[in-house]
Amino acid sequence: MMTLVEQVIRPNVSDDSLLLTAVASPVAPPPRLLMGPGPITVDPRILRAMSAQLVGQYDPAMTAYMTETQALYREVFRTSNEATLLVDGTSRAGIEAALVSLISPGDRVLVPVFGRFGHLLREIAERCGAEVHVREVPWGEVFTLEALEEAVAEVRPKLVALVQGDTSTTMNQPLEGVGAMCHRYDALLYVDCTASIAGNPFEMDAWEIDAATAGLQKCIGGPSGSSPISLSPRAVAVIDARRSVEAGLRSDPESEDETVPTPVRIRSNYFDLGMILDYWGAKRLNHHTEATTMLYGARECARLLLEEGLDEGIARHRLHGDAMLAGVQALGLSVFGDVAHKMHNVVAVEIPSGVDGEAVRAELLNDYGIEIGTSFGPLAGKVWRIGTMGYNARKDAVLVTLAALEQVLRKYGAIVEPSAGTAAAQEVYAR
Amino acid sequence: MMTLVEQVIRPNVSDDSLLLTAVASPVAPPPRLLMGPGPITVDPRILRAMSAQLVGQYDPAMTAYMTETQALYREVFRTSNEATLLVDGTSRAGIEAALVSLISPGDRVLVPVFGRFGHLLREIAERCGAEVHVREVPWGEVFTLEALEEAVAEVRPKLVALVQGDTSTTMNQPLEGVGAMCHRYDALLYVDCTASIAGNPFEMDAWEIDAATAGLQKCIGGPSGSSPISLSPRAVAVIDARRSVEAGLRSDPESEDETVPTPVRIRSNYFDLGMILDYWGAKRLNHHTEATTMLYGARECARLLLEEGLDEGIARHRLHGDAMLAGVQALGLSVFGDVAHKMHNVVAVEIPSGVDGEAVRAELLNDYGIEIGTSFGPLAGKVWRIGTMGYNARKDAVLVTLAALEQVLRKYGAIVEPSAGTAAAQEVYAR
Repeated sequence: MMTLVEQVIRPNVSDDSLLLTAVASPVAPPPRLLMGPGPITVDPRILRAMSAQLVGQYDPAMTAYMTETQALYREVFRTSNEATLLVDGTSRAGIEAALVSLISPGDRVLVPVFGRFGHLLREIAERCGAEVHVREVPWGEVFTLEALEEAVAEVRPKLVALVQGDTSTTMNQPLEGVGAMCHRYDALLYVDCTASIAGNPFEMDAWEIDAATAGLQKCIGGPSGSSPISLSPRAVAVIDARRSVEAGLRSDPESEDETVPTPVRIRSNYFDLGMILDYWGAKRLNHHTEATTMLYGARECARLLLEEGLDEGIARHRLHGDAMLAGVQALGLSVFGDVAHKMHNVVAVEIPSGVDGEAVRAELLNDYGIEIGTSFGPLAGKVWRIGTMGYNARKDAVLVTLAALEQVLRKYGAIVEPSAGTAAAQEVYAR
Repeated sequence: MMTLVEQVIRPNVSDDSLLLTAVASPVAPPPRLLMGPGPITVDPRILRAMSAQLVGQYDPAMTAYMTETQALYREVFRTSNEATLLVDGTSRAGIEAALVSLISPGDRVLVPVFGRFGHLLREIAERCGAEVHVREVPWGEVFTLEALEEAVAEVRPKLVALVQGDTSTTMNQPLEGVGAMCHRYDALLYVDCTASIAGNPFEMDAWEIDAATAGLQKCIGGPSGSSPISLSPRAVAVIDARRSVEAGLRSDPESEDETVPTPVRIRSNYFDLGMILDYWGAKRLNHHTEATTMLYGARECARLLLEEGLDEGIARHRLHGDAMLAGVQALGLSVFGDVAHKMHNVVAVEIPSGVDGEAVRAELLNDYGIEIGTSFGPLAGKVWRIGTMGYNARKDAVLVTLAALEQVLRKYGAIVEPSAGTAAAQEVYAR
């Protein structure tokens, strides 16, 4: 019998001590209060659901969970769309699935950009072969309906791809009327609501959105790794025209699949929503092996959202977001962007001049166990992003964060009125 | 305060009773012994690891887990490849990431097909825009090295894409010498080892494989949803020539990214291994939000494999696979395909004539709690597939399955010698 050391040390591996440590150490992460822009601390009930043992891919229990998960997410998206399901991957997997399934090479796509994730939509659409037209407002602002209509009238796109809440700027793009406007110009509307849904109003049907995708790791309250998605009948019709059946599933794999004209074949198999719909739908045609543990988690996330009530959950995010906003302002921090249009669940604050932003974040994390967020692109090094979402949209999480932030700000040279942050938050709670 | 019913019943939802049940019912799957071709029952230690609370995406604890996971999977793949990491999605996500990142439109790709997953490689390569050349052997056989070389010499592909273990047929393609042969013809070798790795020998470096992808849900012993992948320096060089940086991460998102010539831009953002390498590597450039829970699971899977010893784990799969093989043969079932080349971890048996295959599977599942597998394509309705893999490569799992199968076979009209299956398996164990 070889010893552990003999088993794992191999001549071609240079980092043996790291490896030995890893083999000897089960997962045991340090306790953190995740108050950044996501991922956030997961409700322990969701983690418990995810520790449930697997059942087979076509077990009646599994297909029932899939059907129930669809029903639950119809509620979360506020839609009657039959085509509501999960894509197995992070929120960006859902975005790519929607775009690659809806966009044929050469299609005109309009992407209004107001932050990092608008740029992401643009780049994914480009990679899908779209002729992409971009409109931009400065980071920290949103588009008016008029500006969007003007762009649609000019570009005449097949698809408008729009972020609702962009965590890079904290802005929440108003969507009322956007879908109806797009439809007047015969364009489909896709919305990435990853960062906003369940913490801010989102109305798939009322706002006439044709495709929407999300992730679990923001206000939905779970870990990253599953992307809820919903498609209107109009979107499904586009995908239907591109449907195919995998060769290895046909009784004669050599036969040509006559259902799909090659020129519009979806460029991805993994993200082919036609195939994924056939897997989730009545046909139950095998595609990927569903990530059961993530499905359990996604189902429990939605179940808890509905148990609380969607409106109640949104109101909770508003309350704790308001308390955090009042708190950071009372600590003397300037809020970035158009506060009237910020999401409930995250606030970006300017790093005071003379204060080392990364040192503050490091001390909060290492000494207080609290994570707040850094930022990207044009805002890199200029703002911190502080979230109050999902399980952490809670009074104690807000107050502890403000109390700790006060200590660290003062230590790093900011002038901070003692207890001003927590007092301002308490005032919001007392209203 | 609204009642639960008022909260969840919405006029546009037709399946209200299903929804109410779902909202009232946390995840509680029935106990199953999963003896199909995967997914299989997960080692409870892995599920416990996956119930750990999250840390932030750039927490030192998180980046340490990522680095450790890379070191652990280098051992699992038997490689010194620095570019060893996880793709966030099921095993098929790993396949698509490898192919879309290595294949530029117009590239010649050779796909030797001996089962369903060869057809999958073919179709993914086609969707990547490759000029795909297929060679086939009948389901139940594998390719000789000579046949592969002949095909490579004819096609002169940039990439050969090959499955190692194809669960659709249970065959295990010999790979020794294949990489060296491909390199003599200046072709890269990609291998999908999802179904075979950790249950059968796999030697990434010794066999000169340039890209390999797997999934957790077979012999690695975890749930589906994370795809370990490793890339040789030769494969990384191909990807390096196609690298780009996401617009929203650049300080001026409007600037052109001069690092990538447009014609060879990778067609997917989510599966852009250049970006994923920049996220896992020293740059830690943000891409997707890592699916932390799946990472915890993947890390624990590899940790347990190395704790047992890779060779010991493969020997365990051989032992219990041999016992199951002897058992089903003693029950009078004919084994499908070239038994000398079957994977250790799964056996396909022909459904006896006159026996209703789906009725047998249903009774095993519903009355005995045991799942065995059905089949696809040309084998649909002709064979059952019985796995002994991961946590279920265990004596008690083999014996209980054989005992139950005997009961059900007899009930559905097969002539079965009493206790022949378990006796034959016990003989294997007694050797």
